[in-house]
Amino acid sequence: MSQVYDRVALIGLGLIASSMFWAIKRAGLAGEVTGYARSRATRDTARRIGLCDRVCESAAEAAEGADLVVLCVPVGVMGGVAEEIAPMLRPGATLTDVGSVKRNVIEQVAPHVPEGVHFIPAHPLAGTEHSGPESGFAELFENRWCLLVPVHGSDPEAVARLRAFWEGMGAHAEEMDPDHHDLVLAVTSHAPHLIAYTMVGVADDLRRVTDSEVIKYSAAGFRDFTRIAASDPTMWRDVFLTNKDATLEILGRFTEELFALQRAIRTGDGEQLFDYFTRTRAIRRGIIEAGQDTDAPDFGRGVKKS
Amino acid sequence: MSQVYDRVALIGLGLIASSMFWAIKRAGLAGEVTGYARSRATRDTARRIGLCDRVCESAAEAAEGADLVVLCVPVGVMGGVAEEIAPMLRPGATLTDVGSVKRNVIEQVAPHVPEGVHFIPAHPLAGTEHSGPESGFAELFENRWCLLVPVHGSDPEAVARLRAFWEGMGAHAEEMDPDHHDLVLAVTSHAPHLIAYTMVGVADDLRRVTDSEVIKYSAAGFRDFTRIAASDPTMWRDVFLTNKDATLEILGRFTEELFALQRAIRTGDGEQLFDYFTRTRAIRRGIIEAGQDTDAPDFGRGVKKS
Repeated sequence: MSQVYDRVALIGLGLIASSMFWAIKRAGLAGEVTGYARSRATRDTARRIGLCDRVCESAAEAAEGADLVVLCVPVGVMGGVAEEIAPMLRPGATLTDVGSVKRNVIEQVAPHVPEGVHFIPAHPLAGTEHSGPESGFAELFENRWCLLVPVHGSDPEAVARLRAFWEGMGAHAEEMDPDHHDLVLAVTSHAPHLIAYTMVGVADDLRRVTDSEVIKYSAAGFRDFTRIAASDPTMWRDVFLTNKDATLEILGRFTEELFALQRAIRTGDGEQLFDYFTRTRAIRRGIIEAGQDTDAPDFGRGVKKS
Repeated sequence: MSQVYDRVALIGLGLIASSMFWAIKRAGLAGEVTGYARSRATRDTARRIGLCDRVCESAAEAAEGADLVVLCVPVGVMGGVAEEIAPMLRPGATLTDVGSVKRNVIEQVAPHVPEGVHFIPAHPLAGTEHSGPESGFAELFENRWCLLVPVHGSDPEAVARLRAFWEGMGAHAEEMDPDHHDLVLAVTSHAPHLIAYTMVGVADDLRRVTDSEVIKYSAAGFRDFTRIAASDPTMWRDVFLTNKDATLEILGRFTEELFALQRAIRTGDGEQLFDYFTRTRAIRRGIIEAGQDTDAPDFGRGVKKS
């Protein structure tokens, strides 16, 4: 894999940025990678573990002279960071991000993008429940999708270069319209996360079932929800606040459907339940056939076929 | 590990029974294991793969002369099977089951238990999303809990023997009252499964987001739900119909909580969301500390630390 950018700046050094750094280095995609995190502790950790070729003391310093600047901060602060680094962006440079919401990020960032800078929002669909500069690993993006969301007038050549960059990190890249992106993600990510958070919160609240029982007996299904509900709270707060309409729409649909199934339980309609559960099974098969999950029982969580 | 029973009969040959067979054999817990499944195809498969020392042509034949009979059929048919095998149960034998609901199973089965037979309901909290005679493996119960739910007058010696049997298969055993069992499982298993089924059903329904998009971009959270929603439809239909009250109660609590979070999103109350998501994160830590899940990112799903 050959170099795609001379200098890449990663603003924000959490799970995604740290995984990007290791993936960039593994594939030799950039000459130099600078980095910045708002917290001193994160910058110190980054220096200690060799995350970034150069850890800077401000976002502007990290962005200066870069030909690709990647905003890896929570969605809620994208606009402020863009404003801060804007004066440092040189003509011909590309500004991108990795936020989970696209319409809102575009609204926040676009007004600050200087003439001649290519603004190409993006969203790698990859992550784990861990966060912070030490949680990254080079393989995170392998066989995952990165959605590129070019805005009006994005330079095709700059888009192609960003695509090559993500493909170099192991991802498949695809272009998508921002509103469609936000709806697809509301279904595949945002609503499921809110639902998982809610279920875990309910379990935590129940007085008659103690915390220790919930934890002890979690392998019966509940623990899968807790993994999702262990994701970064700041990131997720911002996602829900900035993809409000699509998320609320999907949650509304979810509630309708849940009520229908509750009624089937209450009235003892076994046929409806059986048909519903048979239909959902087919989707799982599709995901495995598409290579987006393992068919190993229980995610291959340490159980081995004898 | 030494032999605990001379003859064990497994009625129903799905994931749990087949895993029990391999675990029994590995530890030498029984002299002979007989088995029966209602479907001829399942019996043929069992014979082909060496599942059970002897595959019988009726439940009664399998149960005859056994000192432990384990009902491994869907909860909804436990009573009928118990009635069928009752005449074959000899005094001093133990009758148990592996159903996910306990109050209802006791109501169905207890009336058929002959004088002198020890009826000790049980529930191993273990499983995967796979089902059928070929899905079993000896390690399924390792480090998982098996809840024993003795009924009024259960012989302590017979309970101790059943406990030794489950511990021989690698499980931790614990006694619990049937109603408390059904509530704990409604929280840790039944409600989460219904919620996962619902979320997957909603995704499947959406017209603007195509099936292929839902599948392609599932790694963003949704795919964890699909694993749970791929579980056996018959088994789950019966669980919901027979643990109706506890499940509906937890779902009611869930809906209340979901509405509160939806309102927080709608009104832009970031603080409430952030606090909620921080609290749920702590439960995940508890589960990992209790050894009930892996801390490997993303369940260790094929991603490796570099």
